[in-house]
Amino acid sequence: MTVLDLIKTHPQPTSLDRDALLRCIAECLDCSASCTSCADADLAESDVGELVRCIRLCLDCADACDATGRIVTRQTAPDLRVLRAMVEACAAACRACGEECERHAAHHEHCRLCAEVCRRCEQACDDLVATIG
Amino acid sequence: MTVLDLIKTHPQPTSLDRDALLRCIAECLDCSASCTSCADADLAESDVGELVRCIRLCLDCADACDATGRIVTRQTAPDLRVLRAMVEACAAACRACGEECERHAAHHEHCRLCAEVCRRCEQACDDLVATIG
Amino acid sequence: MTVLDLIKTHPQPTSLDRDALLRCIAECLDCSASCTSCADADLAESDVGELVRCIRLCLDCADACDATGRIVTRQTAPDLRVLRAMVEACAAACRACGEECERHAAHHEHCRLCAEVCRRCEQACDDLVATIG
Amino acid sequence: MTVLDLIKTHPQPTSLDRDALLRCIAECLDCSASCTSCADADLAESDVGELVRCIRLCLDCADACDATGRIVTRQTAPDLRVLRAMVEACAAACRACGEECERHAAHHEHCRLCAEVCRRCEQACDDLVATIG
Repeated sequence: MTVLDLIKTHPQPTSLDRDALLRCIAECLDCSASCTSCADADLAESDVGELVRCIRLCLDCADACDATGRIVTRQTAPDLRVLRAMVEACAAACRACGEECERHAAHHEHCRLCAEVCRRCEQACDDLVATIG
Repeated sequence: MTVLDLIKTHPQPTSLDRDALLRCIAECLDCSASCTSCADADLAESDVGELVRCIRLCLDCADACDATGRIVTRQTAPDLRVLRAMVEACAAACRACGEECERHAAHHEHCRLCAEVCRRCEQACDDLVATIG
Repeated sequence: MTVLDLIKTHPQPTSLDRDALLRCIAECLDCSASCTSCADADLAESDVGELVRCIRLCLDCADACDATGRIVTRQTAPDLRVLRAMVEACAAACRACGEECERHAAHHEHCRLCAEVCRRCEQACDDLVATIG
Repeated sequence: MTVLDLIKTHPQPTSLDRDALLRCIAECLDCSASCTSCADADLAESDVGELVRCIRLCLDCADACDATGRIVTRQTAPDLRVLRAMVEACAAACRACGEECERHAAHHEHCRLCAEVCRRCEQACDDLVATIG
Protein backbone atom coordinates (compact mmCIF):
# COMPACT_ATOMS: atom_id res chain seq x y z
CA MET A 1 0.00 0.00 0.00
CA THR A 2 1.10 3.52 -0.86
CA VAL A 3 0.62 4.73 2.71
CA LEU A 4 3.55 2.59 3.88
CA ASP A 5 5.87 4.31 1.39
CA LEU A 6 4.36 7.70 2.09
CA ILE A 7 5.11 7.53 5.80
CA LYS A 8 8.80 7.00 5.00
CA THR A 9 8.91 10.46 3.37
CA HIS A 10 7.82 12.26 6.57
CA PRO A 11 10.21 15.17 7.29
CA GLN A 12 10.28 14.58 11.06
CA PRO A 13 9.42 10.97 11.87
CA THR A 14 8.89 9.74 15.41
CA SER A 15 11.59 7.68 17.09
CA LEU A 16 9.32 4.62 17.13
CA ASP A 17 10.64 1.40 15.58
CA ARG A 18 9.71 1.73 11.93
CA ASP A 19 9.04 -1.94 11.16
CA ALA A 20 6.76 -2.32 14.17
CA LEU A 21 5.01 0.91 13.26
CA LEU A 22 4.38 0.00 9.63
CA ARG A 23 3.12 -3.45 10.56
CA CYS A 24 0.72 -1.98 13.13
CA ILE A 25 -0.66 0.48 10.57
CA ALA A 26 -1.12 -2.20 7.90
CA GLU A 27 -2.81 -4.61 10.33
CA CYS A 28 -5.12 -1.91 11.74
CA LEU A 29 -6.30 -1.06 8.21
CA ASP A 30 -6.92 -4.69 7.28
CA CYS A 31 -8.49 -5.56 10.64
CA SER A 32 -10.86 -2.58 10.58
CA ALA A 33 -12.06 -3.40 7.07
CA SER A 34 -12.26 -7.16 7.81
CA CYS A 35 -14.35 -6.57 10.93
CA THR A 36 -16.71 -4.29 8.99
CA SER A 37 -17.07 -7.07 6.43
CA CYS A 38 -17.50 -9.88 8.99
CA ALA A 39 -20.22 -7.96 10.87
CA ASP A 40 -21.98 -7.46 7.55
CA ALA A 41 -21.67 -11.13 6.53
CA ASP A 42 -22.99 -12.15 9.97
CA LEU A 43 -26.09 -10.03 9.31
CA ALA A 44 -26.84 -12.02 6.16
CA GLU A 45 -26.53 -15.47 7.81
CA SER A 46 -29.65 -17.46 8.61
CA ASP A 47 -28.41 -17.90 12.21
CA VAL A 48 -27.95 -14.14 12.75
CA GLY A 49 -29.49 -14.51 16.23
CA GLU A 50 -26.47 -16.59 17.26
CA LEU A 51 -24.05 -13.99 15.93
CA VAL A 52 -25.21 -10.90 17.83
CA ARG A 53 -22.15 -10.75 20.11
CA CYS A 54 -19.87 -11.35 17.11
CA ILE A 55 -21.47 -8.42 15.25
CA ARG A 56 -21.16 -6.12 18.24
CA LEU A 57 -17.51 -6.91 18.88
CA CYS A 58 -16.69 -6.61 15.15
CA LEU A 59 -18.25 -3.12 15.13
CA ASP A 60 -16.23 -2.14 18.21
CA CYS A 61 -13.03 -3.57 16.75
CA ALA A 62 -13.52 -1.75 13.43
CA ASP A 63 -13.93 1.56 15.28
CA ALA A 64 -10.94 0.95 17.56
CA CYS A 65 -8.69 -0.08 14.65
CA ASP A 66 -9.78 2.92 12.55
CA ALA A 67 -8.95 5.43 15.28
CA THR A 68 -5.73 3.67 16.27
CA GLY A 69 -4.57 3.32 12.67
CA ARG A 70 -4.97 7.08 12.19
CA ILE A 71 -3.25 8.01 15.45
CA VAL A 72 -0.32 5.65 14.85
CA THR A 73 0.07 6.94 11.28
CA ARG A 74 0.66 10.49 12.50
CA GLN A 75 4.38 11.15 13.05
CA THR A 76 4.30 14.85 13.91
CA ALA A 77 4.66 15.82 17.59
CA PRO A 78 3.20 12.65 19.11
CA ASP A 79 2.14 12.15 22.73
CA LEU A 80 3.44 8.73 23.69
CA ARG A 81 0.94 8.26 26.53
CA VAL A 82 -1.94 8.72 24.09
CA LEU A 83 -0.27 6.44 21.57
CA ARG A 84 0.34 3.68 24.10
CA ALA A 85 -3.16 3.84 25.60
CA MET A 86 -4.82 3.72 22.17
CA VAL A 87 -2.68 0.84 20.89
CA GLU A 88 -3.39 -1.10 24.10
CA ALA A 89 -7.12 -0.45 23.74
CA CYS A 90 -6.93 -1.60 20.12
CA ALA A 91 -5.20 -4.83 21.21
CA ALA A 92 -8.01 -5.41 23.74
CA ALA A 93 -10.66 -4.90 21.04
CA CYS A 94 -8.83 -7.28 18.67
CA ARG A 95 -8.48 -9.90 21.41
CA ALA A 96 -12.18 -9.84 22.34
CA CYS A 97 -13.30 -9.87 18.71
CA GLY A 98 -10.81 -12.58 17.71
CA GLU A 99 -11.96 -14.84 20.55
CA GLU A 100 -15.62 -14.44 19.60
CA CYS A 101 -14.99 -14.95 15.86
CA GLU A 102 -12.96 -18.07 16.69
CA ARG A 103 -16.08 -19.58 18.29
CA HIS A 104 -17.88 -19.37 14.93
CA ALA A 105 -14.90 -20.26 12.72
CA ALA A 106 -16.04 -23.83 12.08
CA HIS A 107 -19.41 -22.67 10.74
CA HIS A 108 -18.55 -19.41 8.99
CA GLU A 109 -15.45 -18.93 6.85
CA HIS A 110 -15.69 -15.13 7.27
CA CYS A 111 -15.41 -15.58 11.04
CA ARG A 112 -12.39 -17.83 10.58
CA LEU A 113 -10.66 -15.24 8.40
CA CYS A 114 -11.66 -12.39 10.72
CA ALA A 115 -10.29 -14.25 13.76
CA GLU A 116 -6.97 -14.59 11.95
CA VAL A 117 -6.63 -10.91 11.12
CA CYS A 118 -7.71 -9.94 14.67
CA ARG A 119 -4.95 -12.13 16.09
CA ARG A 120 -2.36 -10.62 13.74
CA CYS A 121 -3.48 -7.07 14.60
CA GLU A 122 -3.45 -7.82 18.34
CA GLN A 123 0.12 -9.10 17.98
CA ALA A 124 1.19 -6.08 15.93
CA CYS A 125 -0.26 -3.77 18.60
CA ASP A 126 1.45 -5.68 21.41
CA ASP A 127 4.76 -5.55 19.51
CA LEU A 128 4.47 -1.80 18.94
CA VAL A 129 3.66 -1.15 22.61
CA ALA A 130 6.75 -3.19 23.55
CA THR A 131 8.96 -0.87 21.49
CA ILE A 132 7.51 2.25 23.15
CA GLY A 133 8.90 1.00 26.46
CA MET B 1 -29.97 15.21 21.74
CA THR B 2 -32.21 12.42 20.49
CA VAL B 3 -29.51 9.79 20.98
CA LEU B 4 -29.73 10.19 24.76
CA ASP B 5 -33.46 9.37 24.69
CA LEU B 6 -32.95 6.63 22.14
CA ILE B 7 -30.49 4.73 24.33
CA LYS B 8 -33.09 4.58 27.10
CA THR B 9 -35.33 2.48 24.81
CA HIS B 10 -32.74 -0.29 24.39
CA PRO B 11 -34.34 -3.69 25.09
CA GLN B 12 -31.33 -5.08 27.00
CA PRO B 13 -29.24 -2.24 28.42
CA THR B 14 -25.87 -2.83 30.04
CA SER B 15 -25.58 -2.68 33.82
CA LEU B 16 -23.41 0.45 33.60
CA ASP B 17 -24.48 3.51 35.57
CA ARG B 18 -26.86 5.29 33.20
CA ASP B 19 -26.08 8.88 34.18
CA ALA B 20 -22.33 8.33 33.84
CA LEU B 21 -22.89 6.58 30.53
CA LEU B 22 -25.07 9.29 29.02
CA ARG B 23 -22.70 12.03 30.13
CA CYS B 24 -19.73 10.19 28.60
CA ILE B 25 -21.58 9.79 25.28
CA ALA B 26 -22.64 13.46 25.17
CA GLU B 27 -19.14 14.70 26.03
CA CYS B 28 -17.45 12.40 23.49
CA LEU B 29 -19.71 13.74 20.73
CA ASP B 30 -19.09 17.36 21.66
CA CYS B 31 -15.35 16.87 22.24
CA SER B 32 -14.83 15.07 18.93
CA ALA B 33 -16.61 17.80 16.99
CA SER B 34 -14.93 20.59 18.97
CA CYS B 35 -11.47 19.13 18.34
CA THR B 36 -12.22 18.84 14.60
CA SER B 37 -13.24 22.50 14.67
CA CYS B 38 -10.26 23.68 16.75
CA ALA B 39 -7.75 21.90 14.48
CA ASP B 40 -9.42 23.59 11.52
CA ALA B 41 -9.40 27.03 13.16
CA ASP B 42 -5.72 26.56 14.04
CA LEU B 43 -5.01 25.96 10.34
CA ALA B 44 -6.46 29.36 9.46
CA GLU B 45 -4.45 31.31 12.07
CA SER B 46 -1.50 33.43 10.97
CA ASP B 47 0.67 31.67 13.60
CA VAL B 48 -0.18 28.19 12.33
CA GLY B 49 3.48 27.18 12.74
CA GLU B 50 3.09 27.60 16.51
CA LEU B 51 -0.02 25.44 16.55
CA VAL B 52 1.28 22.26 14.92
CA ARG B 53 1.22 20.20 18.11
CA CYS B 54 -2.24 21.54 18.94
CA ILE B 55 -3.54 20.47 15.52
CA ARG B 56 -2.04 17.00 15.82
CA LEU B 57 -3.44 16.37 19.30
CA CYS B 58 -6.86 17.73 18.27
CA LEU B 59 -6.93 15.27 15.35
CA ASP B 60 -5.98 12.39 17.68
CA CYS B 61 -8.56 13.44 20.25
CA ALA B 62 -11.33 13.70 17.63
CA ASP B 63 -10.56 10.16 16.44
CA ALA B 64 -10.36 8.73 19.97
CA CYS B 65 -13.63 10.41 21.03
CA ASP B 66 -15.43 9.25 17.87
CA ALA B 67 -14.49 5.60 18.37
CA THR B 68 -15.11 5.71 22.12
CA GLY B 69 -18.46 7.45 21.73
CA ARG B 70 -19.61 4.68 19.38
CA ILE B 71 -18.35 1.85 21.58
CA VAL B 72 -19.86 3.32 24.74
CA THR B 73 -23.17 3.89 22.96
CA ARG B 74 -23.54 0.19 22.16
CA GLN B 75 -25.45 -1.62 24.93
CA THR B 76 -25.73 -5.09 23.40
CA ALA B 77 -23.36 -7.80 24.69
CA PRO B 78 -20.50 -5.52 25.76
CA ASP B 79 -16.96 -6.60 26.64
CA LEU B 80 -16.05 -4.59 29.72
CA ARG B 81 -12.28 -4.93 29.18
CA VAL B 82 -12.63 -3.34 25.75
CA LEU B 83 -14.92 -0.67 27.15
CA ARG B 84 -12.59 0.23 29.99
CA ALA B 85 -9.45 0.30 27.80
CA MET B 86 -11.10 2.52 25.20
CA VAL B 87 -12.54 4.96 27.75
CA GLU B 88 -9.15 5.18 29.46
CA ALA B 89 -7.44 5.84 26.11
CA CYS B 90 -10.02 8.51 25.35
CA ALA B 91 -9.32 10.17 28.71
CA ALA B 92 -5.59 10.18 27.86
CA ALA B 93 -6.28 11.80 24.48
CA CYS B 94 -8.52 14.43 26.09
CA ARG B 95 -5.91 15.17 28.76
CA ALA B 96 -3.06 15.66 26.26
CA CYS B 97 -5.21 17.76 23.93
CA GLY B 98 -6.70 19.82 26.76
CA GLU B 99 -3.23 20.61 28.15
CA GLU B 100 -1.96 21.73 24.75
CA CYS B 101 -5.07 23.81 23.97
CA GLU B 102 -4.77 25.45 27.40
CA ARG B 103 -1.32 26.76 26.40
CA HIS B 104 -2.94 28.71 23.53
CA ALA B 105 -6.11 29.74 25.37
CA ALA B 106 -4.97 33.30 25.98
CA HIS B 107 -4.38 33.92 22.28
CA HIS B 108 -7.09 31.87 20.63
CA GLU B 109 -10.66 31.67 21.91
CA HIS B 110 -11.22 28.39 20.01
CA CYS B 111 -8.36 26.83 21.98
CA ARG B 112 -9.86 28.09 25.24
CA LEU B 113 -13.24 26.56 24.42
CA CYS B 114 -11.63 23.35 23.19
CA ALA B 115 -9.58 22.99 26.38
CA GLU B 116 -12.82 23.29 28.39
CA VAL B 117 -14.63 20.56 26.49
CA CYS B 118 -11.54 18.30 26.63
CA ARG B 119 -11.45 18.67 30.41
CA ARG B 120 -15.15 17.87 30.71
CA CYS B 121 -14.81 14.83 28.46
CA GLU B 122 -11.75 13.60 30.36
CA GLN B 123 -13.74 13.87 33.61
CA ALA B 124 -16.75 12.08 32.11
CA CYS B 125 -14.47 9.26 30.94
CA ASP B 126 -12.79 8.99 34.35
CA ASP B 127 -16.20 8.93 36.04
CA LEU B 128 -17.48 6.17 33.75
CA VAL B 129 -14.36 4.05 34.31
CA ALA B 130 -14.87 4.47 38.07
CA THR B 131 -18.36 2.95 37.79
CA ILE B 132 -17.08 -0.07 35.83
CA GLY B 133 -15.00 -1.04 38.85
CA MET C 1 -22.93 22.01 22.38
CA THR C 2 -19.58 23.75 22.64
CA VAL C 3 -18.71 22.99 19.02
CA LEU C 4 -21.42 25.39 17.82
CA ASP C 5 -19.85 28.26 19.79
CA LEU C 6 -16.36 27.20 18.81
CA ILE C 7 -17.06 27.43 15.09
CA LYS C 8 -18.13 31.05 15.54
CA THR C 9 -14.57 31.91 16.67
CA HIS C 10 -12.99 30.69 13.41
CA PRO C 11 -10.62 33.40 12.06
CA GLN C 12 -11.65 32.89 8.39
CA PRO C 13 -15.11 31.37 8.19
CA THR C 14 -16.62 30.18 4.91
CA SER C 15 -19.29 32.28 3.22
CA LEU C 16 -21.91 29.59 3.85
CA ASP C 17 -25.11 30.59 5.64
CA ARG C 18 -24.21 30.22 9.30
CA ASP C 19 -27.59 29.10 10.63
CA ALA C 20 -27.93 26.41 7.95
CA LEU C 21 -24.37 25.31 8.63
CA LEU C 22 -24.75 25.04 12.40
CA ARG C 23 -28.02 23.15 12.07
CA CYS C 24 -26.46 20.69 9.62
CA ILE C 25 -23.52 20.05 11.98
CA ALA C 26 -25.78 19.54 15.01
CA GLU C 27 -28.11 17.19 13.12
CA CYS C 28 -25.24 15.15 11.65
CA LEU C 29 -23.81 14.60 15.13
CA ASP C 30 -27.15 13.55 16.61
CA CYS C 31 -28.12 11.43 13.59
CA SER C 32 -24.80 9.58 13.52
CA ALA C 33 -25.01 8.74 17.22
CA SER C 34 -28.72 7.86 17.01
CA CYS C 35 -28.14 5.49 14.09
CA THR C 36 -25.29 3.79 15.98
CA SER C 37 -27.67 3.37 18.91
CA CYS C 38 -30.63 2.16 16.80
CA ALA C 39 -28.51 -0.46 14.99
CA ASP C 40 -27.33 -1.67 18.40
CA ALA C 41 -30.87 -1.79 19.85
CA ASP C 42 -32.03 -3.71 16.75
CA LEU C 43 -29.35 -6.32 17.47
CA ALA C 44 -30.82 -6.95 20.93
CA GLU C 45 -34.43 -7.38 19.71
CA SER C 46 -35.95 -10.87 19.54
CA ASP C 47 -36.98 -10.20 15.93
CA VAL C 48 -33.45 -9.23 14.84
CA GLY C 49 -33.93 -11.25 11.63
CA GLU C 50 -36.61 -8.75 10.55
CA LEU C 51 -34.32 -5.81 11.25
CA VAL C 52 -31.31 -6.71 9.09
CA ARG C 53 -31.93 -4.00 6.49
CA CYS C 54 -32.57 -1.47 9.27
CA ILE C 55 -29.23 -2.34 10.89
CA ARG C 56 -27.35 -2.09 7.59
CA LEU C 57 -28.83 1.29 6.67
CA CYS C 58 -28.26 2.64 10.20
CA LEU C 59 -24.58 1.66 9.95
CA ASP C 60 -24.30 3.37 6.55
CA CYS C 61 -26.09 6.48 7.83
CA ALA C 62 -23.85 6.73 10.90
CA ASP C 63 -20.75 6.58 8.69
CA ALA C 64 -22.12 9.12 6.19
CA CYS C 65 -23.17 11.55 8.94
CA ASP C 66 -19.81 11.24 10.73
CA ALA C 67 -17.80 12.08 7.63
CA THR C 68 -20.19 14.82 6.51
CA GLY C 69 -20.32 16.39 9.97
CA ARG C 70 -16.52 16.64 10.00
CA ILE C 71 -16.27 18.04 6.48
CA VAL C 72 -19.02 20.62 7.05
CA THR C 73 -17.41 21.67 10.34
CA ARG C 74 -14.18 22.64 8.61
CA GLN C 75 -14.22 26.31 7.56
CA THR C 76 -10.69 26.69 6.23
CA ALA C 77 -10.20 26.70 2.43
CA PRO C 78 -13.25 24.58 1.52
CA ASP C 79 -13.94 22.98 -1.87
CA LEU C 80 -17.63 23.60 -2.50
CA ARG C 81 -17.98 20.69 -4.96
CA VAL C 82 -16.76 18.27 -2.29
CA LEU C 83 -19.00 19.90 0.30
CA ARG C 84 -22.10 19.73 -1.88
CA ALA C 85 -21.50 16.11 -2.99
CA MET C 86 -20.95 14.93 0.59
CA VAL C 87 -23.99 16.75 1.99
CA GLU C 88 -26.13 15.34 -0.83
CA ALA C 89 -24.83 11.82 -0.15
CA CYS C 90 -25.58 12.31 3.54
CA ALA C 91 -29.14 13.36 2.70
CA ALA C 92 -29.52 10.18 0.61
CA ALA C 93 -28.28 8.02 3.50
CA CYS C 94 -30.65 9.77 5.94
CA ARG C 95 -33.59 9.33 3.55
CA ALA C 96 -32.99 5.59 3.04
CA CYS C 97 -32.43 4.99 6.76
CA GLY C 98 -35.38 7.13 7.81
CA GLU C 99 -37.73 5.27 5.45
CA GLU C 100 -36.60 1.87 6.74
CA CYS C 101 -36.78 2.92 10.43
CA GLU C 102 -40.28 4.32 9.80
CA ARG C 103 -41.41 0.81 8.76
CA HIS C 104 -40.50 -0.47 12.24
CA ALA C 105 -41.65 2.60 14.19
CA ALA C 106 -44.87 1.02 15.43
CA HIS C 107 -43.02 -1.93 16.98
CA HIS C 108 -39.80 -0.34 18.18
CA GLU C 109 -39.60 3.04 19.87
CA HIS C 110 -35.88 3.33 18.99
CA CYS C 111 -36.78 3.04 15.30
CA ARG C 112 -39.45 5.73 15.70
CA LEU C 113 -36.98 8.11 17.32
CA CYS C 114 -34.27 7.26 14.78
CA ALA C 115 -36.66 7.90 11.86
CA GLU C 116 -37.36 11.36 13.33
CA VAL C 117 -33.72 12.36 13.61
CA CYS C 118 -32.99 10.99 10.11
CA ARG C 119 -35.76 13.18 8.68
CA ARG C 120 -34.45 16.24 10.51
CA CYS C 121 -30.88 15.58 9.33
CA GLU C 122 -32.05 15.00 5.74
CA GLN C 123 -33.87 18.35 5.85
CA ALA C 124 -30.87 20.14 7.35
CA CYS C 125 -28.67 18.71 4.59
CA ASP C 126 -31.13 19.73 1.89
CA ASP C 127 -31.35 23.23 3.37
CA LEU C 128 -27.56 23.61 3.47
CA VAL C 129 -27.21 22.43 -0.15
CA ALA C 130 -29.84 25.01 -1.15
CA THR C 131 -27.70 27.80 0.33
CA ILE C 132 -24.60 26.65 -1.56
CA GLY C 133 -26.43 27.37 -4.81
CA MET D 1 -5.39 -7.85 2.33
CA THR D 2 -7.61 -10.32 4.17
CA VAL D 3 -10.69 -8.14 3.73
CA LEU D 4 -10.70 -8.80 -0.02
CA ASP D 5 -10.86 -12.58 0.58
CA LEU D 6 -13.32 -12.17 3.40
CA ILE D 7 -15.86 -10.34 1.23
CA LYS D 8 -15.88 -13.29 -1.19
CA THR D 9 -17.29 -15.51 1.59
CA HIS D 10 -20.38 -13.32 2.08
CA PRO D 11 -23.52 -15.52 2.01
CA GLN D 12 -25.61 -13.02 0.01
CA PRO D 13 -23.35 -10.73 -2.01
CA THR D 14 -24.69 -7.73 -3.92
CA SER D 15 -25.01 -7.91 -7.69
CA LEU D 16 -22.29 -5.29 -8.12
CA ASP D 17 -19.33 -6.13 -10.36
CA ARG D 18 -16.92 -7.86 -8.00
CA ASP D 19 -13.64 -6.68 -9.51
CA ALA D 20 -14.78 -3.05 -9.54
CA LEU D 21 -16.03 -3.43 -5.98
CA LEU D 22 -12.83 -4.95 -4.60
CA ARG D 23 -10.69 -2.35 -6.34
CA CYS D 24 -12.81 0.48 -4.91
CA ILE D 25 -12.52 -0.95 -1.38
CA ALA D 26 -8.75 -1.41 -1.64
CA GLU D 27 -8.22 2.09 -3.04
CA CYS D 28 -10.47 3.73 -0.43
CA LEU D 29 -8.46 2.09 2.36
CA ASP D 30 -5.12 3.13 0.90
CA CYS D 31 -6.31 6.63 -0.02
CA SER D 32 -7.79 7.31 3.41
CA ALA D 33 -4.59 6.25 5.16
CA SER D 34 -2.37 8.07 2.66
CA CYS D 35 -4.31 11.31 3.08
CA THR D 36 -4.05 11.03 6.88
CA SER D 37 -0.30 10.58 6.45
CA CYS D 38 0.11 13.41 3.91
CA ALA D 39 -1.81 15.88 6.09
CA ASP D 40 0.46 14.91 8.97
CA ALA D 41 3.65 15.25 6.90
CA ASP D 42 2.44 18.67 5.68
CA LEU D 43 2.16 19.75 9.33
CA ALA D 44 5.84 18.97 9.90
CA GLU D 45 7.11 20.90 6.85
CA SER D 46 8.80 24.28 7.32
CA ASP D 47 6.42 25.77 4.72
CA VAL D 48 3.29 24.58 6.54
CA GLY D 49 1.65 27.94 5.85
CA GLU D 50 1.69 27.12 2.12
CA LEU D 51 0.11 23.74 2.72
CA VAL D 52 -3.04 24.74 4.61
CA ARG D 53 -5.42 23.94 1.73
CA CYS D 54 -3.60 20.64 1.13
CA ILE D 55 -4.05 19.65 4.79
CA ARG D 56 -7.73 20.55 4.76
CA LEU D 57 -8.49 18.62 1.59
CA CYS D 58 -6.47 15.62 2.82
CA LEU D 59 -8.54 15.57 6.03
CA ASP D 60 -11.77 15.74 4.02
CA CYS D 61 -10.59 13.03 1.63
CA ALA D 62 -9.59 10.70 4.48
CA ASP D 63 -13.04 11.07 6.04
CA ALA D 64 -14.87 10.57 2.72
CA CYS D 65 -12.77 7.49 1.83
CA ASP D 66 -13.27 5.96 5.30
CA ALA D 67 -17.05 6.26 5.18
CA THR D 68 -17.26 5.17 1.54
CA GLY D 69 -14.94 2.21 2.06
CA ARG D 70 -17.17 0.97 4.89
CA ILE D 71 -20.42 1.47 2.96
CA VAL D 72 -19.08 -0.21 -0.19
CA THR D 73 -17.75 -3.12 1.86
CA ARG D 74 -21.22 -3.96 3.18
CA GLN D 75 -22.99 -6.47 0.90
CA THR D 76 -26.16 -7.08 2.91
CA ALA D 77 -29.37 -5.36 1.72
CA PRO D 78 -27.73 -2.33 0.07
CA ASP D 79 -29.51 0.85 -1.07
CA LEU D 80 -28.03 1.65 -4.47
CA ARG D 81 -28.95 5.35 -4.32
CA VAL D 82 -26.93 5.72 -1.11
CA LEU D 83 -24.09 3.70 -2.57
CA ARG D 84 -23.94 5.77 -5.76
CA ALA D 85 -24.15 9.12 -3.98
CA MET D 86 -21.40 8.19 -1.52
CA VAL D 87 -19.05 6.82 -4.18
CA GLU D 88 -19.61 9.96 -6.29
CA ALA D 89 -18.89 12.17 -3.27
CA CYS D 90 -15.75 10.17 -2.59
CA ALA D 91 -14.61 10.66 -6.19
CA ALA D 92 -15.15 14.41 -5.77
CA ALA D 93 -13.06 14.45 -2.58
CA CYS D 94 -10.29 12.45 -4.26
CA ARG D 95 -10.30 14.78 -7.29
CA ALA D 96 -10.04 17.96 -5.19
CA CYS D 97 -7.33 16.49 -2.95
CA GLY D 98 -5.40 14.98 -5.86
CA GLU D 99 -5.36 18.31 -7.71
CA GLU D 100 -4.10 20.19 -4.65
CA CYS D 101 -1.44 17.58 -3.80
CA GLU D 102 -0.28 17.67 -7.44
CA ARG D 103 0.51 21.37 -7.01
CA HIS D 104 3.03 20.49 -4.27
CA ALA D 105 4.36 17.28 -5.87
CA ALA D 106 7.60 18.86 -7.07
CA HIS D 107 8.52 20.03 -3.56
CA HIS D 108 7.15 17.27 -1.36
CA GLU D 109 7.43 13.58 -2.20
CA HIS D 110 4.51 12.77 0.17
CA CYS D 111 2.28 15.08 -1.88
CA ARG D 112 3.40 13.36 -5.10
CA LEU D 113 2.57 9.92 -3.70
CA CYS D 114 -0.71 11.16 -2.24
CA ALA D 115 -1.75 12.70 -5.59
CA GLU D 116 -1.15 9.30 -7.22
CA VAL D 117 -3.30 7.36 -4.80
CA CYS D 118 -6.05 10.02 -4.97
CA ARG D 119 -6.13 9.66 -8.76
CA ARG D 120 -6.32 5.86 -8.54
CA CYS D 121 -9.10 6.03 -5.94
CA GLU D 122 -11.04 8.59 -8.00
CA GLN D 123 -10.79 6.25 -11.01
CA ALA D 124 -11.85 3.22 -8.97
CA CYS D 125 -14.88 5.17 -7.70
CA ASP D 126 -15.80 6.32 -11.19
CA ASP D 127 -15.49 2.75 -12.48
CA LEU D 128 -17.70 1.37 -9.72
CA VAL D 129 -20.36 4.03 -10.32
CA ALA D 130 -20.31 3.11 -14.01
CA THR D 131 -21.17 -0.52 -13.16
CA ILE D 132 -24.10 0.53 -10.95
CA GLY D 133 -25.76 2.00 -14.04
